[in-house]
Amino acid sequence: MTNLGNPLDGYQSPVSGYQILVRLRIQNRPGNLGRVTMTIGEMGADITSIDIVEARTDYIVRDVRMFCVDEANARAIVAKLDALPDLAVLYASDRTFELHQSGKISVENRVHIRNNIELSYVNWPGAERVSEYIRDEPDAVWALTVKSNSVAIVTDGTAVLGLGDVGPEAAMPVMEGKSMLFRTFGDIDAWPICLNTTDTDEIVEVVKGIAPGFGAILLEDISAPRCFEIENRLKALLNIPVFHDDQHGTAVVALAALINGLKIVEKRPEDLKVVLVGVGAAGLACARIMLNFGIKHIIGFDRFGAIYAGRAEGMSPELDWFAERTNLEGFQGSIAEAMVGADLFMGLSRPRLITPEQVETMAPNAMVFALANPEPEIMPNLIQGKARIIATGRSDFPNQLNNVLCFPGLFRGTFDARATTISEEMKIAAARAIAETIPDELLNEDYILPSVFNPDVATRVAGAVAAEAAISGKPRPPVKPVSIFG
Amino acid sequence: MTNLGNPLDGYQSPVSGYQILVRLRIQNRPGNLGRVTMTIGEMGADITSIDIVEARTDYIVRDVRMFCVDEANARAIVAKLDALPDLAVLYASDRTFELHQSGKISVENRVHIRNNIELSYVNWPGAERVSEYIRDEPDAVWALTVKSNSVAIVTDGTAVLGLGDVGPEAAMPVMEGKSMLFRTFGDIDAWPICLNTTDTDEIVEVVKGIAPGFGAILLEDISAPRCFEIENRLKALLNIPVFHDDQHGTAVVALAALINGLKIVEKRPEDLKVVLVGVGAAGLACARIMLNFGIKHIIGFDRFGAIYAGRAEGMSPELDWFAERTNLEGFQGSIAEAMVGADLFMGLSRPRLITPEQVETMAPNAMVFALANPEPEIMPNLIQGKARIIATGRSDFPNQLNNVLCFPGLFRGTFDARATTISEEMKIAAARAIAETIPDELLNEDYILPSVFNPDVATRVAGAVAAEAAISGKPRPPVKPVSIFG
Repeated sequence: MTNLGNPLDGYQSPVSGYQILVRLRIQNRPGNLGRVTMTIGEMGADITSIDIVEARTDYIVRDVRMFCVDEANARAIVAKLDALPDLAVLYASDRTFELHQSGKISVENRVHIRNNIELSYVNWPGAERVSEYIRDEPDAVWALTVKSNSVAIVTDGTAVLGLGDVGPEAAMPVMEGKSMLFRTFGDIDAWPICLNTTDTDEIVEVVKGIAPGFGAILLEDISAPRCFEIENRLKALLNIPVFHDDQHGTAVVALAALINGLKIVEKRPEDLKVVLVGVGAAGLACARIMLNFGIKHIIGFDRFGAIYAGRAEGMSPELDWFAERTNLEGFQGSIAEAMVGADLFMGLSRPRLITPEQVETMAPNAMVFALANPEPEIMPNLIQGKARIIATGRSDFPNQLNNVLCFPGLFRGTFDARATTISEEMKIAAARAIAETIPDELLNEDYILPSVFNPDVATRVAGAVAAEAAISGKPRPPVKPVSIFG
Repeated sequence: MTNLGNPLDGYQSPVSGYQILVRLRIQNRPGNLGRVTMTIGEMGADITSIDIVEARTDYIVRDVRMFCVDEANARAIVAKLDALPDLAVLYASDRTFELHQSGKISVENRVHIRNNIELSYVNWPGAERVSEYIRDEPDAVWALTVKSNSVAIVTDGTAVLGLGDVGPEAAMPVMEGKSMLFRTFGDIDAWPICLNTTDTDEIVEVVKGIAPGFGAILLEDISAPRCFEIENRLKALLNIPVFHDDQHGTAVVALAALINGLKIVEKRPEDLKVVLVGVGAAGLACARIMLNFGIKHIIGFDRFGAIYAGRAEGMSPELDWFAERTNLEGFQGSIAEAMVGADLFMGLSRPRLITPEQVETMAPNAMVFALANPEPEIMPNLIQGKARIIATGRSDFPNQLNNVLCFPGLFRGTFDARATTISEEMKIAAARAIAETIPDELLNEDYILPSVFNPDVATRVAGAVAAEAAISGKPRPPVKPVSIFG
């Protein structure tokens, strides 16, 4: 599908070949269907199928599927069809919405139930026998139930990417998507838990309440500052790993990108001057992992300006922690001033924040990680040649920082090692493993991170995390083999 | 596999062909393996496979699978093997435990993720677009997410069949079993939620907290009297159906059995004299559904004796409700006295409660539903010919009352009709549909309930429940077709 030069000016979807379904009620008169197909063809779209949904003597309802040029083209086609005589557009949706019908995940059986014998194995009396065994040998829950491999994806829907606070129901498609990534890349069973409360205490109580059936908790899209307290309290309360993806997943992938970036620009972490703009949940986690990795010079900015110890305005316990460990010179100037001579600009803030001229003032071989989503702090095409390495959160530019590189493999390794916590060292191990997936000889300015479809990523991350977990992940002892006789 | 007359006296498993796995560490000396196979053969078992798990120069670890006569035979074999020289039994488990390894259910994807295009449909930006749509059109959560078809199976593990209070972890195998039944018989996605609290208020808060992502709540194995308040409060708080299976599932199937029983004995509900022993969660629900069905004469017993209005001892709000509607004559005698001339004995209490002689005093064409599990109030073989119809909860006698006949089809119909509550009428509709699965001409004393594997049951129950739900199930309006343009 190529762009046919449609005159309509509109948003070009990153998904090429924009497929839509239009349901039409067409009066039963010769020539009416021909007018539909001609209109669609004239507008530059390709019909892929026409089905009959309902046939009456006076009208027929048809589903017409077609590839449009883009979303604007699709809108124009639907409007033009709706204006035709003898015809009504009942509804129109695109491939994304069609794929979401009835949800994207299911619960399936791993054992057959085809007859009474098989039923007796998996239900009464079989399940009750296993239940009795676990009652007497509590660790066996890790051998004999899905707890051993299951994650609760917990959200309150307050911080969905690009949308903010949409509430728990509207967050479901995003959480189902995370579940799919766990299955695809980590072979993990993850179920969405969308909460009808945004109260910190209540969230902690509810997650604690449902924890017995799950092997780990992924917190997702919970807004700051509540996310800090929720994660910390749950980590203290529960004996299973708790991980806030928006913080730590982002940080792991950012560190992976940085590790490979440093190899290319041939700089050492302890020498690096970092300007970090946006010190919210993700920014703080990035700062923490960079500090743990050995980076010593970070100046952070929030909407009140540079962050330094003793600043009067807009501080919080998290920012106090940050101010004690960064900007030891007490710099109080602007972002533009801080960027002069800096080696890495890392943005987790908002679109169009910095200019190409500012990037030009950075040190030689500068790196720009402009991670605001969906529109970065500066568009990569504006600073080609001005920064040596440019990374964003977008899939339509090179060097995409995508959390999918981290969490499936990280949880796989965590489960494999029976870790009860995800330590800082395990996060750094995950970052190194992501980075090392690309052999040094293949590294280049546009290839500092592997594709999310690189089959080695999750395997390598899982292996590295499991090895580190044996040291710092407080692993449970191995489950004793189930022995039911003597 | 036939019983080979093994001299060991032990429990005969209801599962014929008792298959076990024994892991043996055998010293590497000629004749050692032969001694193993000979011992197993002499004990009457058949080896089905021998695998090598680990081979060393001095020993080999082997997995030996075999069919034993029964559990006692298996125990004897394992003990005899363990006593052999040069050999250690590392562990032994049976088919039930092997099938439970790593759990019995999984979360699977309904849509592929094979490349970046497919990833963009189901994750960012696709999932976020759908999220935005649901934010603006909240009802669309029922069209575009798994909420439309998902059930939370909620338990605190306090009342597992035959075991009682095992706690939430040990309840997992049983809840996973329920999930499998939902998939197999109702095409429903159900996930276990095992709670780490038994406090009524906390359970209500937790279930309310997780409700947004689920289409319905099944309460399971929560002990009385908390189950009453939990169900009632959740029904009042939530706009999705809440159903306590131990109460209402049992009641629906009991009524189905009764409906067909009445056809055989040719009695009318309003004439029936019922003795109900065990007025806990299930007993109360059975009483309620029988009263709603038109039965007028019930005398209930608990451990304090006959229940009547104004009784001093052991009353509760639930028993007050019961006493106001039953035993209007104020009978205060014994179970044996109440059974004289009764048409139906229904027991939900404990093993060996009544005698054949008592059954003989019942009215002609008496029915005995002895539902205590796993051992009924009286064993069916003791009253053959004394009662016209005998039903139990066991699969190894005719007329098994099994909740599986009810809940998968009931929830299927509830979802299909978009019901927000499961009304009393819907329960009665489910009971009638189960009963009517057996054509009148095939009904007989040993065939008053269909097999759980009769493929018509769930379909018929779903259809009948959906039809009734349109009247009494407070259905949500149909979801508007998703229309993303204009």
